[in-house]
Amino acid sequence: MAAKVLAPIIENEASTGRLVLVCEHASNAFPAPWGDLGLTAEQRRAHIAWDPGALAVARGLARRLDAVLIHAPATRLIYDLNRAPDMLGAMPARSEIHDIPGNAAISATERLARTEALYLPWANGLHNLIARRIALGLAPVLVTIHSFTPIYHGRPRSVEFGVIHDADATLAVAIHDAARRLTRLNAELNAPYSAADDVTHTLRVQATPYGLPNAMLEIRNDLIADDAAADQMAATLAPVINMGLTEIQKQAKAS
Amino acid sequence: MAAKVLAPIIENEASTGRLVLVCEHASNAFPAPWGDLGLTAEQRRAHIAWDPGALAVARGLARRLDAVLIHAPATRLIYDLNRAPDMLGAMPARSEIHDIPGNAAISATERLARTEALYLPWANGLHNLIARRIALGLAPVLVTIHSFTPIYHGRPRSVEFGVIHDADATLAVAIHDAARRLTRLNAELNAPYSAADDVTHTLRVQATPYGLPNAMLEIRNDLIADDAAADQMAATLAPVINMGLTEIQKQAKAS
Repeated sequence: MAAKVLAPIIENEASTGRLVLVCEHASNAFPAPWGDLGLTAEQRRAHIAWDPGALAVARGLARRLDAVLIHAPATRLIYDLNRAPDMLGAMPARSEIHDIPGNAAISATERLARTEALYLPWANGLHNLIARRIALGLAPVLVTIHSFTPIYHGRPRSVEFGVIHDADATLAVAIHDAARRLTRLNAELNAPYSAADDVTHTLRVQATPYGLPNAMLEIRNDLIADDAAADQMAATLAPVINMGLTEIQKQAKAS
Repeated sequence: MAAKVLAPIIENEASTGRLVLVCEHASNAFPAPWGDLGLTAEQRRAHIAWDPGALAVARGLARRLDAVLIHAPATRLIYDLNRAPDMLGAMPARSEIHDIPGNAAISATERLARTEALYLPWANGLHNLIARRIALGLAPVLVTIHSFTPIYHGRPRSVEFGVIHDADATLAVAIHDAARRLTRLNAELNAPYSAADDVTHTLRVQATPYGLPNAMLEIRNDLIADDAAADQMAATLAPVINMGLTEIQKQAKAS
């Protein structure tokens, strides 16, 4: 029997723009053979399972900025696509204040099966998307779209829009500057967490080795709680990202 | 019609050892539809087309060290698998003192076709090999095996064994130290070239993002001019690599 493969979903692949949007935590689907991992319906709707609103924002951005978009086919609790296969967070036994029964004891065989089903098709699919665009001279720019919970371990978070970078801060700094100029969002660099928390796996694997400009965007999920709010956020952030892209192009020309 | 795919060749995949050996320049095959790129038979046998002897050394090492080995299916003049698709060296119009007629004017479409045929299957194949081993807890170590010409642009090279590193020098330093202790080879770090010459693409894409120990080994090709000499070199280098691996394991335990 062929191994189960849950492929990433790609939208607007024909775009020839620079921007590649990535949404690793787009989905709270719990497909077979894993199923609900022993979680309640409420837990499966919560931020531990996905980034609520992130896909709707990403789609609104893709439409406004003519970007290609790649997003996850399943919950991050089966495999967190922004984690390497040996990271504890790839198949977490606990997330925030919730135990994940189906992840309590994962054998090496099960770790491999989930890696084969989700991580490899995802990583190869995104890599192919990027490498093809590099070959065509489209000079891709990678931006990942996430959302975060307003209250974590009981503590409220005041940041509304976080811009996180890994080794190359250029684009993140430009987007953060643009957000402060163009919006009233409480925008912060490297908040509510940073690369030191091992949240930048996608940037490290897919952008840094090719020298591509990259950033990870985090939106507080109470601001994008329904599709209308998410689309409004996309309308707010599209000119922010555009200004960031213009700024790094200006810097590249000057250097 | 499905796009042509020239897949990497993998040997000893069942190995459960840490070592993953990589030979990007193993082959001087000039398959259709590209053919000889306008080169003479002598040019197609020369170091510009491949790393003579590297595959034989890599095979000798794989056998002695129980390593998995992945190697290229075609000449680096069609696509140099140790280069990103936008690097000039990926499909070079000139190599050392030789023009490559078939690469004189490469369109974006042709660049994409070669990327699809050679680079993507290679990069995905190596990535899958590594990610599966990470998932299984095998803690892979990446070592690439190359050879270099003793005379380059008319200048003789005295280095016999070069050990090149990228961001993480740990394994390269350990292997270089071991070579100086165990062999009479003229061993040098970052010679005859270094990461600054953009020769460490494989290490950057496949090892660094996962935090895997890695190094690039370069052997002067006059020392491995036939299979017997190459196997003798593998016999010399196997204990060198082993000592390097032991050293980094010791360091990892101490830290």
